[in-house]
Amino acid sequence: MNTAEFKSYAGKKVLVVGGLGFIGSNLVLRLVELKAEVTIVDALTPHLGGELLNIAPVQNDVTVELVDVRSLQDMRKLVDRHTLIFLTAGQGSHVGSMEAPFQDLDLNCRGRLSLLEACRLEGVTPGIVYLGTRQVYGRPSSLPVDETHRTLPLDINGIHHLAVEAYFRLYHDLHGIPSIGLRLTNTYGPRMSITSMAMGVVGAFVGRALRGESLPLFGDGLQIRDFSFVEDVVDALLRCGQVVNVGSRVVNIGGERSTLRVFAERLAALVDVPVEYVPFPKKRRSIDIGDYVGDYSVLQSLTGWRPTVGIVEGLERTIGYFRSRQVNF
Amino acid sequence: MNTAEFKSYAGKKVLVVGGLGFIGSNLVLRLVELKAEVTIVDALTPHLGGELLNIAPVQNDVTVELVDVRSLQDMRKLVDRHTLIFLTAGQGSHVGSMEAPFQDLDLNCRGRLSLLEACRLEGVTPGIVYLGTRQVYGRPSSLPVDETHRTLPLDINGIHHLAVEAYFRLYHDLHGIPSIGLRLTNTYGPRMSITSMAMGVVGAFVGRALRGESLPLFGDGLQIRDFSFVEDVVDALLRCGQVVNVGSRVVNIGGERSTLRVFAERLAALVDVPVEYVPFPKKRRSIDIGDYVGDYSVLQSLTGWRPTVGIVEGLERTIGYFRSRQVNF
Repeated sequence: MNTAEFKSYAGKKVLVVGGLGFIGSNLVLRLVELKAEVTIVDALTPHLGGELLNIAPVQNDVTVELVDVRSLQDMRKLVDRHTLIFLTAGQGSHVGSMEAPFQDLDLNCRGRLSLLEACRLEGVTPGIVYLGTRQVYGRPSSLPVDETHRTLPLDINGIHHLAVEAYFRLYHDLHGIPSIGLRLTNTYGPRMSITSMAMGVVGAFVGRALRGESLPLFGDGLQIRDFSFVEDVVDALLRCGQVVNVGSRVVNIGGERSTLRVFAERLAALVDVPVEYVPFPKKRRSIDIGDYVGDYSVLQSLTGWRPTVGIVEGLERTIGYFRSRQVNF
Repeated sequence: MNTAEFKSYAGKKVLVVGGLGFIGSNLVLRLVELKAEVTIVDALTPHLGGELLNIAPVQNDVTVELVDVRSLQDMRKLVDRHTLIFLTAGQGSHVGSMEAPFQDLDLNCRGRLSLLEACRLEGVTPGIVYLGTRQVYGRPSSLPVDETHRTLPLDINGIHHLAVEAYFRLYHDLHGIPSIGLRLTNTYGPRMSITSMAMGVVGAFVGRALRGESLPLFGDGLQIRDFSFVEDVVDALLRCGQVVNVGSRVVNIGGERSTLRVFAERLAALVDVPVEYVPFPKKRRSIDIGDYVGDYSVLQSLTGWRPTVGIVEGLERTIGYFRSRQVNF
C-alpha cells in the first residue's frame, strides 16, 4: 500500500464511528500511520466486536469517545467538527438479524439514521463513507453481480442495509450530504471477531482453527465467495474518502474468488486441523445466497482500487496476528 | 357494494390492527355489517387519526383491545386466535416522516415487524392484508405505474414502507405467513383525519372546507393523482382478505384520476369556499413525486376489484359525514 497517494489524509480531522471494531480499528491504525487526526466513536456494545485492545498500538494518538451513535445529542457535537466520517459501526450478523430483528433494526437503521439526523440538525454536510453488504442483492440472478443487480434481500440485515442506502441517497438529495456505501463481501483479517458463528463463517473458522478445532463446512462447501482481506477493505475506504464529495453512491468491493471449501482447506493446512462436512442447518440454508461473485469495476474506475492480498497471505497474517496477541481464543 | 360475494366473512374471526383509525374503522364497520367477529387492536397513539368515535355505531358489536402493536407480548396472544389480520395501523405522513424520522421508523418498521414476529414466535401463519403506499416508487419514470416500476422512495416514509414489504416477503418465504400489501394512493372519505396538513393534502382540504377556509393549492395544482374513496379501499381490502392465502404480494390500488386542482375545485364548489394558488413550499417540493397514475390491473385480475365511487359523489358523502357528526372541525 502506497502512503504517498494518501497524503491528503495528513492532518485531516477524521471521525471513525465504530472505530474500535474489526474494520474500524484497522482503518484507525492506518489513518494514524497517515498522520490523520482521528476521533473514534464507539459504544463498545457487547457482541459487536469492538474492544480497546484493537487500537492498543495507537491509543495515545487518537481521541476515543465512548458514545453511542444513537445518541443524537452527542453526535451533533461530533459531526460539527469533522468533514470526513467513516461509519463502520453496526450489526453484521445475518443469522443474528433473523433471531433478533429488533436489535438489528435499532443498531443498523436507527444507528445510521442518527448520524444523518445529527448532520441535518447541525446543518453540516461531511462526506460519509459507510459499510454496506452484498446481502442487499439476495440470491444472485447472474454472476458477476454489479450494482445494478436487483435487490431482494434474504434476511433482515439485508433489508435494513437497503433502507440505510436509501437514507443516504435521500439525505444527499435533500440535505446535500455526500456519501459512498461500500457493499462488503466476506471480510477477514486481524482484529476480526472470532468467537461466534453468528458473526460470519470466516471469523468462526479462524477462531476454531486457533483453538485446534475442526472446520465444519455446511453441505459440500462449494459456494463461491469473494474473500476480502481487511487491509484491502481499508484501502478501499481510504480511496472512497478521497472522492466522496461528489454525490451519493453504492459500490461493490471484491477480493480473491474461492469456494468456501478451498478457503477452509487453506486455513486447515496452515494450522493443521481437519475440515469436516456437516449437513446444512435449516436456519442457514434458508438465508444462504448460493454463489456470489462481485463486480467491483465501478469502485476500480472511481478510485483505482484493486485487491492486493490473496487468501494464503491473508490467512497467514491473520493467524500470525492472533497468535502474537497471546489472548485466549 | 355486494354483500353476497363477501359471505365468507360471516362468523369469521378477524383482527383489525389500527381499527380505530381512518381506513381501519371504515373496514370494521363493513366487517360488522358482514357479520364477522371483529377484534380491534389500537393504541390510540396521538395524531395518528384513531378515535373511539369512529366506531360508535358498532361499539357493542366488536372487541376493542387498547394495545400497542409494538408490544410483542400482547400481540402474541392476539395473533394466536385469528387466521385473518388486517394491518391498517401506522404513520402515514410523508412530510411528518422527514421531520420525525425516528418516530416513523418506530411506528412503521418496528410496529409492523412486531406483528410478524408475534406470528413467528407463536408459530402461526394467519393471512395478513396490510396497507402500503405508492410512495415506494418515488417519482414515476413513466405512467401508469405498475408493480414492476423501480422503487426509489423520496421520503423516509416511503423507505420504511419498502422495508416493510420486504419483511412480509421474507416472513412468507421463511415462515409461511401469507400476505398482500395494498399500495395506497390518495385515500379520502368519512372518518379521515382532517385537522393537519401533515396527514395529507386531501384531509387538510376537507377540514379547511368545513371550516369555511380557502383551499391553498401549491404551484399550479396540475399534478395528477388517483383519488380513492375509502369505501373502495375497504372493498379492495375485503377482496384481498379472500385471496391472501396464496403467497406474498404487493398490489396497486386506483381511483378516479384527476388533477389536484380539479379535486379542489369540486370540493370548493360543494361548500362554497375559494381555491387559492400559493408558491410550492420548499420542504414539500423536494419530496413531491409529480404526476402519479397507478395501474391496478393486478388487483383487478386477482380479485375483480374496480373503483366505484367518483370524486363528486365521494366528496359529497365525506362532507355529509362530517357535518352530521356535529363536532368542531
